[in-house]
Amino acid sequence: MVKINENFLTMKKNYLFIDIAKRLKKYTEENPDKQIIKMGIGDVTLPLAPVVVEAMKKGADELGKKETFKGYEDSGTGYDFLKDAIAGYYKSFGVSLNSSEIRVNDGAKSDCGNIVDIFGDDNVILVTDPAYPVYVDSNTMAGRKIIYADSNEENGFAAMPDKSVHADIIYLCSPNNPTGSVYTKAQLKEWVDYALEQGSIIIFDAAYEAFITDPELPRSIFCIEGAKKCAIEMCSLSKTAGFTGTRCGYTVIPDELTVTASDGSEVSISQLWSRRQGSKFNGVSYPVQCAAAAVFTPEGQKQTREAIAYYQRNAKLMAETLDDLGIKYTGGINSPYIWLKCPNNMGSWEFFDYLLNNIQVVGTPGEGFGKNGAGWFRLTAFGTYENTAEAMKRLKELLRK
Amino acid sequence: MVKINENFLTMKKNYLFIDIAKRLKKYTEENPDKQIIKMGIGDVTLPLAPVVVEAMKKGADELGKKETFKGYEDSGTGYDFLKDAIAGYYKSFGVSLNSSEIRVNDGAKSDCGNIVDIFGDDNVILVTDPAYPVYVDSNTMAGRKIIYADSNEENGFAAMPDKSVHADIIYLCSPNNPTGSVYTKAQLKEWVDYALEQGSIIIFDAAYEAFITDPELPRSIFCIEGAKKCAIEMCSLSKTAGFTGTRCGYTVIPDELTVTASDGSEVSISQLWSRRQGSKFNGVSYPVQCAAAAVFTPEGQKQTREAIAYYQRNAKLMAETLDDLGIKYTGGINSPYIWLKCPNNMGSWEFFDYLLNNIQVVGTPGEGFGKNGAGWFRLTAFGTYENTAEAMKRLKELLRK
Repeated sequence: MVKINENFLTMKKNYLFIDIAKRLKKYTEENPDKQIIKMGIGDVTLPLAPVVVEAMKKGADELGKKETFKGYEDSGTGYDFLKDAIAGYYKSFGVSLNSSEIRVNDGAKSDCGNIVDIFGDDNVILVTDPAYPVYVDSNTMAGRKIIYADSNEENGFAAMPDKSVHADIIYLCSPNNPTGSVYTKAQLKEWVDYALEQGSIIIFDAAYEAFITDPELPRSIFCIEGAKKCAIEMCSLSKTAGFTGTRCGYTVIPDELTVTASDGSEVSISQLWSRRQGSKFNGVSYPVQCAAAAVFTPEGQKQTREAIAYYQRNAKLMAETLDDLGIKYTGGINSPYIWLKCPNNMGSWEFFDYLLNNIQVVGTPGEGFGKNGAGWFRLTAFGTYENTAEAMKRLKELLRK
Repeated sequence: MVKINENFLTMKKNYLFIDIAKRLKKYTEENPDKQIIKMGIGDVTLPLAPVVVEAMKKGADELGKKETFKGYEDSGTGYDFLKDAIAGYYKSFGVSLNSSEIRVNDGAKSDCGNIVDIFGDDNVILVTDPAYPVYVDSNTMAGRKIIYADSNEENGFAAMPDKSVHADIIYLCSPNNPTGSVYTKAQLKEWVDYALEQGSIIIFDAAYEAFITDPELPRSIFCIEGAKKCAIEMCSLSKTAGFTGTRCGYTVIPDELTVTASDGSEVSISQLWSRRQGSKFNGVSYPVQCAAAAVFTPEGQKQTREAIAYYQRNAKLMAETLDDLGIKYTGGINSPYIWLKCPNNMGSWEFFDYLLNNIQVVGTPGEGFGKNGAGWFRLTAFGTYENTAEAMKRLKELLRK
């Protein structure tokens, strides 16, 4: 009789977005005339840049002609034209990468989930709390021990390492989802030093790096000395260039990153991952890679930075509103997320209902991201400016009463 | 200290295509003037159909406009327009599917490799030999016991179940890669009955179904009664519509497929897979899904069937040549592969060198696909007609001597 992976049965079902949808549905049915403003979902709303669309169409045309048709990609790790473009992008913030260190994928979520395959199930996993649920879920499926580092009001929702606690694999996300906090170079250096000391590997989620405007803040963990000996970085064009429906990202695995196997041999993480992907992945659609490469051209950067600036303007307005109201928050600058403390000691869900019922604004209750999210709330800057301004106007009126 | 998944170290490195490339390189360097005809690689060569290219470009344009922009796909399992098109395609050969039973993916290889995640590591895996290497590799990575069913000259390279042997998960591929053999309905019924009796699950790889012309042969395992209680089917547009570089496929998991967990509860395989994919996959690029849907339109079917007919004409010519020469083979009809017995009792690699050195034709040594491939050789019909005809002319001249 076939046996399922019973670790799946131990997984907590994440009811967060289902619960939100239910409450929203009930409210809409009871109040059909109210105009609801959604600031809960982490999805972009602005269209792809024109230069990106043109590149994808050109790629599609090439597939339609015998002379330029592309079948299987030899390496399955991305065409050189795209890997070179990504390497050039990293160079712009001071990180030097070999083409072999870059793996093109269909979005960071796949690699972030699948990377667990190359590690043993006896590793101790460290996740900061609150966090993006994939880190916990993908390791729970493999039956691994997970421990947490608290991100809370005291540390500005930027958890720091505790040398008395051992961890083998560490998930960090900066700028953070959901808290919007960004590690400084000094803070990231502490994590890198901790990892090197413990012999652990950091999986660094840089999905929101494009929102960093402060040149002193690291946009890659590889801005930190020593990181190439202990870190893997994942990034995507989802938020950088509006690729949530287009699907393209990249993983950086340093050539020099190795782990000692039980027989004492030094095993290359890059080679392990190649072995995994060689059996379970066949590369990214050619026209999508063309579109992705266009993002990194000067014109592509100009056009995609306009969309980011639009979202940043929203975030700034939200931050200013909260400043005005005297509400504590992290994020808003260098991040598309605002993570705010629910006023009047309200709970996350209480505040959710309060906003929905009174001003028809929908956000995300912080406790959905982990225990340290209790009493906190996430708003995103991915809506239209008009809606964001209207929501902030309503919020001011509500909380000034 | 971080621990790797040591199962990776037990994997045999597949040197097949590396060895072929090495021998080819050496020959080319020594014989720069010789015109080599490659009949080894299972990749298509004809461009995408015009209607498919247009659909992809239209999808790209939609992403470039605010009104029609698409972000994350809600379900991540494929847009209804594509799932409905796939359901309609299945209906054309007599299989009725609910939209919920279809999962759109970035090619069969991903799901075929990732599906192992939802099953326990204590399952016994049955693979027919010779076989596409992903079945073995993805289970070896998980440290599972693998047993083999022999496909050989006696059974027409179509292994049948042995009731005295127990297996929990069974991989079948029909039309088969590499042998080109196709299971009849009666043969597949035997496998389904075996699976139902053993409480096992069949993972059915239908990647080459579009090459079946005989209406009596099953194009889906769901043509067989009882299969919805014991099978998962994987297919892709790679060979059906030349999508090897475009990347789109689909997995069919019947709604009624369940497994009894150790606590006695009935667990839905569909729900387990949704849980896995919900954490590790974010859906297929929207323009690619538009392109895929175009394949299933009447015009798309007409245009893509033309390419298949072109490859089938190659296969027919190859089969006729081998008939002429009195060489035994399987495939060629209902399959893009021809699997031939090396003449004069040559070994697979001996015949490889013999063809390369004498007539500059490159194929794939059968032993690269498993022990039963020793003394056999794979040729593919995916080249141009001119090259195929030239190769067959040279083969005739060589072997008639």
